[in-house]
Amino acid sequence: MDSVGVGLIGTGYMGKCHAIAYSAVATVFGLSTRPRLELLCDLGAEQAAAAAAAFGFARSTDDWHKLVSDPAVDVVSITTPNGLHPAMAIEAARNGKHVYCEKPLALTLEKAEAMAAAVREAGVKSLVGYNYTKNPAVSHAKRLVEQGAIGRLLHFRGCFDEDYLADPALPHSWRMQKEKAGAGALADMASHLIHMAQHLCGPIGAVMADLTTMHAERPINDGSHAATGRVENDDTVSALVRFRAGFSGSLDSSRIAWGRKSRFAWELHGSAGMIAFDQERMNELQLYQAKGPKAEQGFKTILSGPAHPPYGNFVPAPGHSLGYNDIKTVEVAHLMRGLAGEETLYPNFTDALDTERVMHAMLRSAKEGQWVSLD
Amino acid sequence: MDSVGVGLIGTGYMGKCHAIAYSAVATVFGLSTRPRLELLCDLGAEQAAAAAAAFGFARSTDDWHKLVSDPAVDVVSITTPNGLHPAMAIEAARNGKHVYCEKPLALTLEKAEAMAAAVREAGVKSLVGYNYTKNPAVSHAKRLVEQGAIGRLLHFRGCFDEDYLADPALPHSWRMQKEKAGAGALADMASHLIHMAQHLCGPIGAVMADLTTMHAERPINDGSHAATGRVENDDTVSALVRFRAGFSGSLDSSRIAWGRKSRFAWELHGSAGMIAFDQERMNELQLYQAKGPKAEQGFKTILSGPAHPPYGNFVPAPGHSLGYNDIKTVEVAHLMRGLAGEETLYPNFTDALDTERVMHAMLRSAKEGQWVSLD
Amino acid sequence: MDSVGVGLIGTGYMGKCHAIAYSAVATVFGLSTRPRLELLCDLGAEQAAAAAAAFGFARSTDDWHKLVSDPAVDVVSITTPNGLHPAMAIEAARNGKHVYCEKPLALTLEKAEAMAAAVREAGVKSLVGYNYTKNPAVSHAKRLVEQGAIGRLLHFRGCFDEDYLADPALPHSWRMQKEKAGAGALADMASHLIHMAQHLCGPIGAVMADLTTMHAERPINDGSHAATGRVENDDTVSALVRFRAGFSGSLDSSRIAWGRKSRFAWELHGSAGMIAFDQERMNELQLYQAKGPKAEQGFKTILSGPAHPPYGNFVPAPGHSLGYNDIKTVEVAHLMRGLAGEETLYPNFTDALDTERVMHAMLRSAKEGQWVSLD
Amino acid sequence: MDSVGVGLIGTGYMGKCHAIAYSAVATVFGLSTRPRLELLCDLGAEQAAAAAAAFGFARSTDDWHKLVSDPAVDVVSITTPNGLHPAMAIEAARNGKHVYCEKPLALTLEKAEAMAAAVREAGVKSLVGYNYTKNPAVSHAKRLVEQGAIGRLLHFRGCFDEDYLADPALPHSWRMQKEKAGAGALADMASHLIHMAQHLCGPIGAVMADLTTMHAERPINDGSHAATGRVENDDTVSALVRFRAGFSGSLDSSRIAWGRKSRFAWELHGSAGMIAFDQERMNELQLYQAKGPKAEQGFKTILSGPAHPPYGNFVPAPGHSLGYNDIKTVEVAHLMRGLAGEETLYPNFTDALDTERVMHAMLRSAKEGQWVSLD
Repeated sequence: MDSVGVGLIGTGYMGKCHAIAYSAVATVFGLSTRPRLELLCDLGAEQAAAAAAAFGFARSTDDWHKLVSDPAVDVVSITTPNGLHPAMAIEAARNGKHVYCEKPLALTLEKAEAMAAAVREAGVKSLVGYNYTKNPAVSHAKRLVEQGAIGRLLHFRGCFDEDYLADPALPHSWRMQKEKAGAGALADMASHLIHMAQHLCGPIGAVMADLTTMHAERPINDGSHAATGRVENDDTVSALVRFRAGFSGSLDSSRIAWGRKSRFAWELHGSAGMIAFDQERMNELQLYQAKGPKAEQGFKTILSGPAHPPYGNFVPAPGHSLGYNDIKTVEVAHLMRGLAGEETLYPNFTDALDTERVMHAMLRSAKEGQWVSLD
Repeated sequence: MDSVGVGLIGTGYMGKCHAIAYSAVATVFGLSTRPRLELLCDLGAEQAAAAAAAFGFARSTDDWHKLVSDPAVDVVSITTPNGLHPAMAIEAARNGKHVYCEKPLALTLEKAEAMAAAVREAGVKSLVGYNYTKNPAVSHAKRLVEQGAIGRLLHFRGCFDEDYLADPALPHSWRMQKEKAGAGALADMASHLIHMAQHLCGPIGAVMADLTTMHAERPINDGSHAATGRVENDDTVSALVRFRAGFSGSLDSSRIAWGRKSRFAWELHGSAGMIAFDQERMNELQLYQAKGPKAEQGFKTILSGPAHPPYGNFVPAPGHSLGYNDIKTVEVAHLMRGLAGEETLYPNFTDALDTERVMHAMLRSAKEGQWVSLD
Repeated sequence: MDSVGVGLIGTGYMGKCHAIAYSAVATVFGLSTRPRLELLCDLGAEQAAAAAAAFGFARSTDDWHKLVSDPAVDVVSITTPNGLHPAMAIEAARNGKHVYCEKPLALTLEKAEAMAAAVREAGVKSLVGYNYTKNPAVSHAKRLVEQGAIGRLLHFRGCFDEDYLADPALPHSWRMQKEKAGAGALADMASHLIHMAQHLCGPIGAVMADLTTMHAERPINDGSHAATGRVENDDTVSALVRFRAGFSGSLDSSRIAWGRKSRFAWELHGSAGMIAFDQERMNELQLYQAKGPKAEQGFKTILSGPAHPPYGNFVPAPGHSLGYNDIKTVEVAHLMRGLAGEETLYPNFTDALDTERVMHAMLRSAKEGQWVSLD
Repeated sequence: MDSVGVGLIGTGYMGKCHAIAYSAVATVFGLSTRPRLELLCDLGAEQAAAAAAAFGFARSTDDWHKLVSDPAVDVVSITTPNGLHPAMAIEAARNGKHVYCEKPLALTLEKAEAMAAAVREAGVKSLVGYNYTKNPAVSHAKRLVEQGAIGRLLHFRGCFDEDYLADPALPHSWRMQKEKAGAGALADMASHLIHMAQHLCGPIGAVMADLTTMHAERPINDGSHAATGRVENDDTVSALVRFRAGFSGSLDSSRIAWGRKSRFAWELHGSAGMIAFDQERMNELQLYQAKGPKAEQGFKTILSGPAHPPYGNFVPAPGHSLGYNDIKTVEVAHLMRGLAGEETLYPNFTDALDTERVMHAMLRSAKEGQWVSLD
């Protein structure tokens, strides 16, 4: 096929992010298969029409059922709140649409499993938006590990901190309700961290987690001054993990970490070196190798460049920096090539179940106060 | 008008950069006036056709004269080697086309002046691609200066270093010939630095420059091993400057600075603080303010975010990083709005002459070994 | 008293460190009570005599019993392997000597308690060498917390990583034997981290730890090539902690972390800001305060200076950097003033028991795989 | 000789710095020849006596003539304002004393030359306090250059900025008077920078300098509110330089650079790599080498350690940080060994004349507005 008909559900943070990636991807990558922006769905017909105009989509609707059954749509981008993912993804799959869904898949493991089953049964392709692994710097880190650049893996350390709920005066919202949002920092950010740990270190065998809700009540914006709502999910999560490969790690995430804007930072400790990365400086990879004269050993700051594909598709000169949206463009290029049969989509819904399982094991561990095995 | 017909000449580094920006700009900014990718020109009909397909242009040509006279083209993007800018820009202007040209304008001041005269006489609009000033972090720096955040300006320090010619084994090319490329590091990078200094500190009144060519001979790739070609322009430029506002500065640039990939770094010294920036960490602004308790004074690392417009058009969350291409998208949004009459284009060809004048004054100063006044 | 007679046991890493601090402290601080370097004890009479000459001590001995009973000695510095601390400290105390002992106190909690009892019963003063809290930057961090600069504490994150045993080829030694060294990274480094967490955040109520030994066998240097010895203690420790004040933290430490030379890094997350510190840049304190315009918020890098006492005793100019030994000099100045009755020594042996208790609770937690309460 | 009798003139910033170094040096380095603190001279007999007590000197005087002729004094440390150096140094030399003098030597080149002549004629040894080159990280940088680690030198870039006079409200003082202080930032800081450039790159052949005085008037603290005094020397200096070896450099220094506390930062550009250093992070050396796979090239942050002598004399573990005073201790160890005939003192007064000549050439260049040759 020469082009892929795209249907996009949602026009918020991630909805616009998908739209930007679709608009730029063919030019950046010179794709043979280009996205064709067919149909956009948002709440309210007018808002949907406005967003379609702004994002360059041909048509709009306020009924997602129509979108997932539209004949011109080949792939459905789902960027709605997580609780809505399963129904949309499952119906899309049953209609024979490929599904590109934001993370995590669902609020419960059962629903996530149902999503994975639906795409398998329908024989459609799927992709989950764990975009951070698509950063050329991160891909290079993985390549370095595979090449033995830091020897045998011995330990993983990671955090993902932001401050989007750090202000205690921020109002209560659906994000703090278990029924609507599921977990808190664990779902929003630690899911990315878990996925990254699995991507770099392989399967996780057991977890021991501790969750806290430090801002337990938040004001309700209903004109009444005294009203507050209870925050039902986690502000912070800290976890010990054991990888199947026989080493340990620790993961931390907070949504109330003042000053951190996108501090998704991790370290790979190896028997011959270390790799470190911080998303706030997403174009820099830190590499220490225990070789050469001691007097010249040190962490190298490697700036992303054409030597780290597919950076060169964006800019031919090194050190010129990719941005957050560019990484989503890499992900969408992968989606296009996957749909064209040129690449195997990763992580698909089944792959992503591994991450969901760890998330839910952490929830259980924190509740029970003990190690939970993933076996 | 609802859309602007775009003609793009050149498909190299900056040509692709323009194309990516045109493809994403409407979605990112929700523009009322969208670019319409009409015609692309490159050397060779086949290559032009291939690039048009890859970049999403409707048609292609290998004759730039056709492009600058094409009725569907409203604005011409010129991304060819600098020596070719004047003829293209002048003919485009005479055909009533707006012109968006990469920097610097020309190899000689006379030609640059002719370009400025041509657009003025034709009554068309113009924009020069000094994109680095369009970075939200840089725009914020300028705003801070205007708000008096660091007091009265006292000094400017800047460098722009890369290593694209650092390897002495790199072959001789047209870039090293005065007739074809004009100056070296001075034209490629120091022009950006001069423009930035003027943008932040106002007009420059006098310059004292020193140029060196450290790799004076480079191998010629003609199969003959012994042949070398003479490098006729500058590998490094260092300059003292005096701003009209009564303070001094120093500017340095090198194209043979190993390890520097895009180190366009500068400092604004003020009577009440300092601002520092480094393009290699283009999402960070350093701000020191001499206020509050001494024990808590220090440089603040401000991560770009929605508080620094137009960052929020790209991502609603702070600290998620814009990339090099995103800044070009900001520039193209400015172009679109300028052509729609919503903003005044800056720097246009006349504005850019100030930078060309300083460049040529530096060349003369280096040759004569003395201060050259810009008065 | 005008001077304090010092007896030093041990001349290795920490022994020399004590000696340097004793030699400089009076000049740096203009002390009324100066150390008088009386007696030095090391293994072997000749080595002891040589060290005494090098370190400026008046006399030497190879019998520590003589040192702790010497009439000219007022305070005994103990810098031997940890297993030897208790006997020396207890005998010194019983002889009426004040005791300045390196950390941790002992291999078992019982012995540490016996040491604390001995100094209490003898009515002598004691100090434990948790020097990192004496860094002016760290003292300022504590002051900031107490002043409410970052609001209410919400979370603690810390690590202490080095690579002194990262090379798998390093030979087996007493340091890897439980009987002689006790714990591994937990005793060497995590003890500092636990103490820092307690110093900054108050008492710890419960811990959940995970220990690994990744290099389980190491070569034995006895001329036989094939022989290896089993490493009996921890290469890495990761722990979740709950502070009594109602918030959580996570602590990690590794002695096999390639590239880390003294990465004792921690973060204090508060309801109104964050403080971060890294010992590898021990003269920098990172402070984020959620106040002022959003566009100007960011982490401030505060360089140590005279505004952070007692930095000014070393250099009158800010940003000129203190070193590792300088912090020990701060500790010894505290010791001198404590012995002169001008300050209350902290942490004394009783204070330090809190840290030992957490260490041993972590050992038990790791063994049992469950949370251990400190109540 | 077993010990060296020390006489110290001055007890301010550098006076105390010398005293601390003398107190610690023998212990740190295990010197065979130890300093013996004989006599201290300060203004006022009481103040001198107090300082002698604080710094551990045996005797005191308020008459420097007595000090430079005292039979027990072997070496005289001169740490007074620069204008006083010549008389003291010359008289000391004539009395057969070795002289250890702070930098720069004098207010005029003639006086500096007279000092050099005096020590030569008297046959005594001399050392000038350009301490920054004694930092183990800097010594390693020089070693790397000599080993060809970055190839042939192509360019030098350096600055030395502080903010000790950045506040325009700071009162007028002798430091701003030409007659008493000579140059401003040029003498205080740029002298260090020039010396470092010469140390690393060899002789300077020509200079082109620009000086500014941005805070031209400062309040006089005499109770009268309206009075101000004229600042007669430079707040900032910027200079282009040509090294005899055939490459260029640029040097900048400011004493009004808010936020900079000890930013003595420089870069060595080579044909095969780059070395960069910043005194504010004085334990870190940045090294880029253009070798190995492009994807793994980057600046290495090398933390000072035992592999960089004489770091190991201070701490046996790498990355534990030396401080500003430690570098002075390295300098004093060199002095002690030089006096014992074990090393050749560098830079002695004659060596230091090279730096004075460049300083004065810069003053002349700035005055005349043209290049000044050092030939």
